[in-house]
Amino acid sequence: MADKVYNFGAGPAMLPEPVMQKIQQEWLNFQGMGVSIIEISHRSKEFVAVLNEAQSLFRELTGLPDNYRILFVHGGARMQFSALPMNLAERVPSRKSLYVESGNFANLAAEEAKAFSHMEIIASSAATNFDRIPKITLEEINQDAAYLHITSNNTIYGTRWNQFPQTGDVPLIADMTSELLSRQIDYNQFGVVYAGLQKNLGPSGMAMVIIREDLLGHASRQTPTLLNYTQCDKDNSLTNTTNTFAIYVIKLVLEWLKEQGGVKAIEKLNKQKSARLYQVIDNTDFYHGIAQPEFRSIMNVSFKLATEELENKFLQAAGAIGLYALKGHRKVGGVRASIYNPMPMAGVEKLANFMTEFERQNR
Amino acid sequence: MADKVYNFGAGPAMLPEPVMQKIQQEWLNFQGMGVSIIEISHRSKEFVAVLNEAQSLFRELTGLPDNYRILFVHGGARMQFSALPMNLAERVPSRKSLYVESGNFANLAAEEAKAFSHMEIIASSAATNFDRIPKITLEEINQDAAYLHITSNNTIYGTRWNQFPQTGDVPLIADMTSELLSRQIDYNQFGVVYAGLQKNLGPSGMAMVIIREDLLGHASRQTPTLLNYTQCDKDNSLTNTTNTFAIYVIKLVLEWLKEQGGVKAIEKLNKQKSARLYQVIDNTDFYHGIAQPEFRSIMNVSFKLATEELENKFLQAAGAIGLYALKGHRKVGGVRASIYNPMPMAGVEKLANFMTEFERQNR
Ligand SMILES: Cc1ncc(COP(=O)(O)O)c(C=O)c1O
Ligand SMILES: Cc1ncc(COP(=O)(O)O)c(C=O)c1O
Ligand SMILES: [Mg+2]
Ligand SMILES: [Mg+2]
Ligand SMILES: [Mg+2]
Ligand SMILES: [Mg+2]
Repeated sequence: MADKVYNFGAGPAMLPEPVMQKIQQEWLNFQGMGVSIIEISHRSKEFVAVLNEAQSLFRELTGLPDNYRILFVHGGARMQFSALPMNLAERVPSRKSLYVESGNFANLAAEEAKAFSHMEIIASSAATNFDRIPKITLEEINQDAAYLHITSNNTIYGTRWNQFPQTGDVPLIADMTSELLSRQIDYNQFGVVYAGLQKNLGPSGMAMVIIREDLLGHASRQTPTLLNYTQCDKDNSLTNTTNTFAIYVIKLVLEWLKEQGGVKAIEKLNKQKSARLYQVIDNTDFYHGIAQPEFRSIMNVSFKLATEELENKFLQAAGAIGLYALKGHRKVGGVRASIYNPMPMAGVEKLANFMTEFERQNR
Repeated sequence: MADKVYNFGAGPAMLPEPVMQKIQQEWLNFQGMGVSIIEISHRSKEFVAVLNEAQSLFRELTGLPDNYRILFVHGGARMQFSALPMNLAERVPSRKSLYVESGNFANLAAEEAKAFSHMEIIASSAATNFDRIPKITLEEINQDAAYLHITSNNTIYGTRWNQFPQTGDVPLIADMTSELLSRQIDYNQFGVVYAGLQKNLGPSGMAMVIIREDLLGHASRQTPTLLNYTQCDKDNSLTNTTNTFAIYVIKLVLEWLKEQGGVKAIEKLNKQKSARLYQVIDNTDFYHGIAQPEFRSIMNVSFKLATEELENKFLQAAGAIGLYALKGHRKVGGVRASIYNPMPMAGVEKLANFMTEFERQNR
């Protein structure tokens, strides 16, 4: 019999098994309606209940303060790279947006903002190939800026912000695509938090935006209606036909997360999962972690072996026993284990044991 | 036993039964990979094969000329209301865009274009409450405009363009959201054809854009990367993480359509289906068609009864025997039967018989 497959892909990533099974079970007949959830109107009472439930579960699981709104928006995380400056730059006369460059997506976000604001990169770890999070101090943050943007977890390099920067009156915006709901967060620190769904939350092609109410109402006239957060909020994310399938899946994933004990419990598990892998990496010079230990992600564990040849051998042998999609991103090479919320400890255990055994046979 | 449900919803609409069953069957294990299609990378060879196959099936089924490109874009049809002027207005010094107002979505498209071009409505059927397609002649089309936009099938009112207008050198753009692939079309008449997926093609939240090659390369600098057709084409629709689920479903729907005999065969069936309903409507003054006969849609059949009370009774009785989602759009009221490609003749037959019986009992 073939091995059970554990999927370490960075995204679109694995979803919880019970969620996938539930989708399959009710696929042809949602709540006894005789039709599928993907075949009903986004304005039907049944779908609107799903959407509202997803929002209230998110509030419950995160303890989100009342003055934050929850939006479901089209296009994944990168669409928000455009939407953020369009919605926020005109809040201030300077139209200035500040970015911290901590990796590939941080860089893409900053580049995109150039077309819609006066973008400035205030810190970068490019010089050390993004192996760390750059240090920034409050003094470096120009208080006339519209916002400061960070990427809280850098998917490719496997780094993350442990503590978030003090920004004074400048709203802090975080791209949490690869870590939303993986750890407890005080949302009061942020003006906007957003995430593409395809790692911890659901299928690809859509994003969630959590926005502090007072930041609504500033979109530039040249903002496409569907990128306008104020419009989206006014219409409860139903300005046009939303991605009903994605919102349905988010709701199921949030229910699952609640059953797991919520964010606190999953954070504990995520720490255990990542610690298990970092332990194998640190116990030997056969494996080299890419991120500086102080900035290690608990979602994406990136490492190298001595040669590309050895890495390919590793990936092939791993794949043969059901350890799927471990290849590192082309920008860094090596190996990357993405261990989002849905990855069970058993998958991590299997990978850790494989790493030890592979070393024994190949050192 | 409960009646089999026939879903007449306008969108998200029903999908072909064999497609829905196939999705369910391979949900947890796509092509023996041990993971779901929604859990694999958009850049994996397996997913890219699905995307390429969807494109080539579309070409094959439509006979699309070689100088047209096929794009999969985020956000449904309305996102293209913004993207079109952003991508096309700067083709010409006038930055002028021309619109024909033939219904609700035509109007929304025109409104959106104001922010990104010099928009002008050249014809409207608002005065007769959109019961027809306005007449336009070549002389009325200013040849210095960037494009002329029409809505080929008006979902709410149930009207359609039977013949498309001559536009000279001005590219003709058609929103075909509610009729793409329902009838044979000579694509050479168009500069761009686009459609949200959620009627004839797949789930909601994404659109297809068919664009003539020479229209690429003119996007304004202020175009969000993910709304830029040139960028999308360059990246084969994979600039960011696409809606992999939607593209997978499109591919299955196109395979199903091919098995039905292709567009020619489905057009024949669509004509029979709609004729069956229009016949019931025309045989009595109990039902009143909303569209002028000359402009009747073969996708959306909209009609009224004498009073709102009677309409509500009709809708309730229909729902009770599994005729689902027949309520007309709030802008016109009454009844609307959306009978897209996936609706079988049996569903139409059941509705037609119900209409006759309901009339007998309530006239
Ligand atoms: C941190 C981060 N931001 C943004 C993105 C881009 O997301 P999307 O492809 O949904 O636009 C990714 C994708 O992996 C990511 O990891
Ligand atoms: C003709 C037409 N155009 C545009 C739209 C809007 O599509 P979406 O909701 O995907 O933006 C619709 C939706 O029903 C439509 O029927
Ligand atoms: Mg990165
Ligand atoms: Mg080591
Ligand atoms: Mg209409
Ligand atoms: Mg009549």
